[in-house]
Amino acid sequence: LNIMSNVRKRKGLLELLVEGPVVGDGSMCMTLEKRGYCRAGPWTPEAVLLYPDAVKQLLREYMRAGADVLQTPCYASSDGRLKRGNINYTVRHKFHTSEINEAACKIAHEVALEGNALVCGGITPVLSYLHKKGDLVIRAEFTDQLEIFIQRRDTVDFILAEFFGHVEELEICIDVMKRSKMPIACTMRIGPLGDLNGVSVKECAVRMARTGADLIGLNCMFDLNTTLKTIKRMKKALDDEGLETPLMCQPLGFMCPEVENSLYGYARLSEDPFALEPRQVTRFEVHAFARAAYDLGVRYIGGCCGMEPHHIRAIAQELSAERGRNPPVQDMCPPCEWLKKSNITTTQKKTNLEFWMNLKPGCGRPFNPSCNK
Amino acid sequence: LNIMSNVRKRKGLLELLVEGPVVGDGSMCMTLEKRGYCRAGPWTPEAVLLYPDAVKQLLREYMRAGADVLQTPCYASSDGRLKRGNINYTVRHKFHTSEINEAACKIAHEVALEGNALVCGGITPVLSYLHKKGDLVIRAEFTDQLEIFIQRRDTVDFILAEFFGHVEELEICIDVMKRSKMPIACTMRIGPLGDLNGVSVKECAVRMARTGADLIGLNCMFDLNTTLKTIKRMKKALDDEGLETPLMCQPLGFMCPEVENSLYGYARLSEDPFALEPRQVTRFEVHAFARAAYDLGVRYIGGCCGMEPHHIRAIAQELSAERGRNPPVQDMCPPCEWLKKSNITTTQKKTNLEFWMNLKPGCGRPFNPSCNK
Amino acid sequence: LNIMSNVRKRKGLLELLVEGPVVGDGSMCMTLEKRGYCRAGPWTPEAVLLYPDAVKQLLREYMRAGADVLQTPCYASSDGRLKRGNINYTVRHKFHTSEINEAACKIAHEVALEGNALVCGGITPVLSYLHKKGDLVIRAEFTDQLEIFIQRRDTVDFILAEFFGHVEELEICIDVMKRSKMPIACTMRIGPLGDLNGVSVKECAVRMARTGADLIGLNCMFDLNTTLKTIKRMKKALDDEGLETPLMCQPLGFMCPEVENSLYGYARLSEDPFALEPRQVTRFEVHAFARAAYDLGVRYIGGCCGMEPHHIRAIAQELSAERGRNPPVQDMCPPCEWLKKSNITTTQKKTNLEFWMNLKPGCGRPFNPSCNK
Amino acid sequence: LNIMSNVRKRKGLLELLVEGPVVGDGSMCMTLEKRGYCRAGPWTPEAVLLYPDAVKQLLREYMRAGADVLQTPCYASSDGRLKRGNINYTVRHKFHTSEINEAACKIAHEVALEGNALVCGGITPVLSYLHKKGDLVIRAEFTDQLEIFIQRRDTVDFILAEFFGHVEELEICIDVMKRSKMPIACTMRIGPLGDLNGVSVKECAVRMARTGADLIGLNCMFDLNTTLKTIKRMKKALDDEGLETPLMCQPLGFMCPEVENSLYGYARLSEDPFALEPRQVTRFEVHAFARAAYDLGVRYIGGCCGMEPHHIRAIAQELSAERGRNPPVQDMCPPCEWLKKSNITTTQKKTNLEFWMNLKPGCGRPFNPSCNK
Repeated sequence: LNIMSNVRKRKGLLELLVEGPVVGDGSMCMTLEKRGYCRAGPWTPEAVLLYPDAVKQLLREYMRAGADVLQTPCYASSDGRLKRGNINYTVRHKFHTSEINEAACKIAHEVALEGNALVCGGITPVLSYLHKKGDLVIRAEFTDQLEIFIQRRDTVDFILAEFFGHVEELEICIDVMKRSKMPIACTMRIGPLGDLNGVSVKECAVRMARTGADLIGLNCMFDLNTTLKTIKRMKKALDDEGLETPLMCQPLGFMCPEVENSLYGYARLSEDPFALEPRQVTRFEVHAFARAAYDLGVRYIGGCCGMEPHHIRAIAQELSAERGRNPPVQDMCPPCEWLKKSNITTTQKKTNLEFWMNLKPGCGRPFNPSCNK
Repeated sequence: LNIMSNVRKRKGLLELLVEGPVVGDGSMCMTLEKRGYCRAGPWTPEAVLLYPDAVKQLLREYMRAGADVLQTPCYASSDGRLKRGNINYTVRHKFHTSEINEAACKIAHEVALEGNALVCGGITPVLSYLHKKGDLVIRAEFTDQLEIFIQRRDTVDFILAEFFGHVEELEICIDVMKRSKMPIACTMRIGPLGDLNGVSVKECAVRMARTGADLIGLNCMFDLNTTLKTIKRMKKALDDEGLETPLMCQPLGFMCPEVENSLYGYARLSEDPFALEPRQVTRFEVHAFARAAYDLGVRYIGGCCGMEPHHIRAIAQELSAERGRNPPVQDMCPPCEWLKKSNITTTQKKTNLEFWMNLKPGCGRPFNPSCNK
Repeated sequence: LNIMSNVRKRKGLLELLVEGPVVGDGSMCMTLEKRGYCRAGPWTPEAVLLYPDAVKQLLREYMRAGADVLQTPCYASSDGRLKRGNINYTVRHKFHTSEINEAACKIAHEVALEGNALVCGGITPVLSYLHKKGDLVIRAEFTDQLEIFIQRRDTVDFILAEFFGHVEELEICIDVMKRSKMPIACTMRIGPLGDLNGVSVKECAVRMARTGADLIGLNCMFDLNTTLKTIKRMKKALDDEGLETPLMCQPLGFMCPEVENSLYGYARLSEDPFALEPRQVTRFEVHAFARAAYDLGVRYIGGCCGMEPHHIRAIAQELSAERGRNPPVQDMCPPCEWLKKSNITTTQKKTNLEFWMNLKPGCGRPFNPSCNK
Repeated sequence: LNIMSNVRKRKGLLELLVEGPVVGDGSMCMTLEKRGYCRAGPWTPEAVLLYPDAVKQLLREYMRAGADVLQTPCYASSDGRLKRGNINYTVRHKFHTSEINEAACKIAHEVALEGNALVCGGITPVLSYLHKKGDLVIRAEFTDQLEIFIQRRDTVDFILAEFFGHVEELEICIDVMKRSKMPIACTMRIGPLGDLNGVSVKECAVRMARTGADLIGLNCMFDLNTTLKTIKRMKKALDDEGLETPLMCQPLGFMCPEVENSLYGYARLSEDPFALEPRQVTRFEVHAFARAAYDLGVRYIGGCCGMEPHHIRAIAQELSAERGRNPPVQDMCPPCEWLKKSNITTTQKKTNLEFWMNLKPGCGRPFNPSCNK
């Protein structure tokens, strides 16, 4: 922890966004499931309580990879989801949103102190909206999630309403979040078909901006290419309306063109959640994505399910000139001396980023299809 | 740490092998590179010294996934490779084999104490063999590596000569290792074409068994399917000669049928080492592999590059009946309640292991080939 | 030539459409190019004059496969295309539209006499529309093409305006065709993006129907799946407007999902026109297509480039119940006795159409991508 | 029919082979099945009797594509196969080998007269060998087939024992054929595993040469790449023994790497015989094959199942310099003026053979695997 990082933190999210593109963190639940610390599906809260060291280790890796922001790892932590949902938590009957969120704040803050990171408090959609419980109940569920971030505002730099499928619900959520007086970001989990109520991408973008949020965008459910298409439509909608809210995106780390025109994205794949390996993006696919997203005007780029530390590093390296800094572990990436010293010509070529950017990696499974449903 | 585990450890490798199939650990360098703790290529030693906590975390994940054995993470730690090789270590001029191996012993032992694991001391091929420096120099390099394992025999349960490309070099190494009076395992990195001197698979198998090693087999460089082919030939060669040495294998975690008939395996792929994601095996491909390997008579099954904790878990789960126990984190795998409770029929099917075993996962990249060279 | 076929012919196109689905013929130029009788690209006219026997043979094969209709093989026969276009005809300076069309009429009529087929006179879009030469010039070019069909009305059963990229040009053409008092069919070469002037699929459909044509639809440029999507939109547009014009389609015989959202369809593929083999449809893909098109309400189904005699046979066999008759050569298709008598179980399965309909054929090229641009 | 062609014919097969590489013809049964003139499986004899004009047309196309030789289209015409086999011939009980072979001679001769082609009389393996009926019965069956070629020696230039799976049977056949005093060629249908009795490729090659045949080689069942591998081993075996018999090959026209190590080649594919389209070779794959085969020393190159007229043309064009002549229809291939005149840059590139040779064509089916079994 040095003075530089204190200076950076004091600036906060909005100042950082002015300086250059901000890098977010990556996959939590999917990665922790592989490491043996939570179950597939619904999601990180149990790991936060049961295995805080393993969660901290993963956040630390993202920060070392160049993430400027660490999210509190509490996705799906709303009492509605914890208690009445189709979710089998070990902790279901023992813990409440506030306990989980407090543990998550502590984890993210302690790792952030080791480096330069901001902490972002995450707010989750609520089942009471889906079940049409009425405005009061919905707002109460959001307030429950928000409360601890307000209490811990010394350690939480901004708040993010994340993974919303209905823009109407997001509008209610942001209205509740404004109480906090903290900077507000928000993302929807939509693709080209728009939101789950049939609201178009363009209308979603405009309504998101008009909530007054400081940063709006997309997260999970669709792959890098589809996310770029949707972001492009959002950007055009904002431009057409003269709206200037900066854009963010944290896409899925698995290629899945076949579900581009589905409302539920990769949840519709046969491979989800246990056989997605062949679809996982390479760091070079992320390099290309980060460049394209930046060129479209996106100013906050991170990852969601399947985007692991080396993918986040690729974002930070691709945008190092624009950001004026390299990620801490950049030296572990190509070009590396070992490849240069090889006697084999093809290996020497591999020190060149261009080689990797032009490569179309194979999956080594000629008996498998490229796409599935 | 309970009495049971002490009982288990007192039994040692040979007793464990009698009880049922033993599960090894998985990928070190490749996984630590993604996490940001070592460079691609050559290999873990620097992480052992610079980031011991990150290395311990990965070993811990393997143990929780069901690994009975933790290797000392010191592959490529021979003074020849550290000082004169084509390797760019930060630590090149500061550390010696003995220091690295001591740190590796400490790391593996401390994690092993948290559970039931044995510790295996790893011995690496030496450049002096490749450069024909003569028997004395070669033996001295092996002795250097071995020394610390003998000194730390209270914490090291057996020793493994690993990743040998020449059976002749392996014979010398095992001769040196016998000094230790510890159980000895050894693996070669060969495929169907045999060793790098052109010695056939069958001859390699017989010569490996005739060294008197307690456990012999294959590790990295070739994928699950190719490894099974090669193991089958080894088994037949041993049977033909009436040799009964038990077999082990720790294959590559990436599919690469196109290099089956290459001496250098996946090192000949364009995608190696930075764009291998689409080739990474799924846990179900590992389930099938573990069953097939066991049916061929293999009694020690682990993983090498690309085989991560969830893959090791798949080995332990597949062989749970034969082993008489489940891995500690087995409950995080399918079938899981969350999938069962879904309203979506296709999701309900996913609670069935058969669904996953029959699935041919796609890579989501229709513009890429299946195979490359 | 028997009484039955005379009875059938006297009924004409409109009566046939009432009886059940009509089967069209298939690929001319692309198939004749492979056989060595015309050049790739633009198109059959030279073969009609230079190799009439080879052209007759191909038409005969379509008729034997079940085609109810043989088109006069004169696509691209307009003086504008023959003389001023970017087309290199051997015959460019020697022959006129009227000579080519007369030869084409003779060829189609003579083959039709061998069986039950109707003859359809084909009209081609004109360069004078593309070059904005004005209404009079455009109409004169259509009149040139039409003239011979009117003179030979004893041998031509109806006329087809085919392969139009602009609905506006098609409207002019049909206005000219009405002079003939013959039944009129028309097709556009459009995909989901609509016509080359940006007119939507729905508007094209409605405008085509409002010309008063007796049969409207789609031909070439897009594959079976994309054609079904576009036809579905056309059908909905007609239903919404209360229009009941029957639909036809003669799709491309090559799979090309990657150009679905291009105006020019398969002409944008790298593989066009000389390396399309791996994309060629199987007869079973045509079986499925014919059933789906019929279920969408299509009542005239044939093929364009790449749809060869065995594909046309698949249409006639799939719809044999609805048509009340089998194609003449139906016995050469599965199930066949030879496969049944095999000792091999997998071969016996092949007598079952279900086996083939469920099979996903491989291309045998693991080093190639599935898609290209 | 001009003087040149008479001069050529007088030279005969052996003289032609001295002048340069000879081009054979292509697929009969598979292509006639698609055109509607015979059933899949066993094979052309019924078409020869029932549809001679359609058979002549296909032979004519091969001759126009550059074939120097037309085979009598009588594969499977042995009384054993016709009467007692698992074959359902319409003609089974009406016609004998001699009648079929006489019709086949007439067809091939009449087409050959239109151009420069030699006629090759084809001899088929016999069921009596498979059923171990004894030497006398086997020889009698071969004699039956041979008789008509001897009687019609004015129109038959040489004889070919084709598609033998057992080298032992081939030796008997050639011994019978020697009676004819005509030049003798022979091919086996073997891949890398050798013949159906387990005789290795190398032994097959040497035994074939030692029969005294004038031309020996491979035909159908394996694809272009596998055929090259097997031919290479044959060539080496001949060289090692100092044998100089020239080599021929007429490979399968479908890619099927997955059956390379099967005795029965593409007959083991799910797609055989009705869904092979995606596997069909492109003319450019044939260009590359023809060059590679020539470079390996092959001096007679044609095609078997799936090799259609445009593929044969590719052989003749690729070897036009070595042969000192172009095929008659060469002008219908690239480069062609139409492509050059296009305004589209990518289309202009297509006038360059290099573009096509470097292209890896896609199959347009991302939901299908590359390989199947």
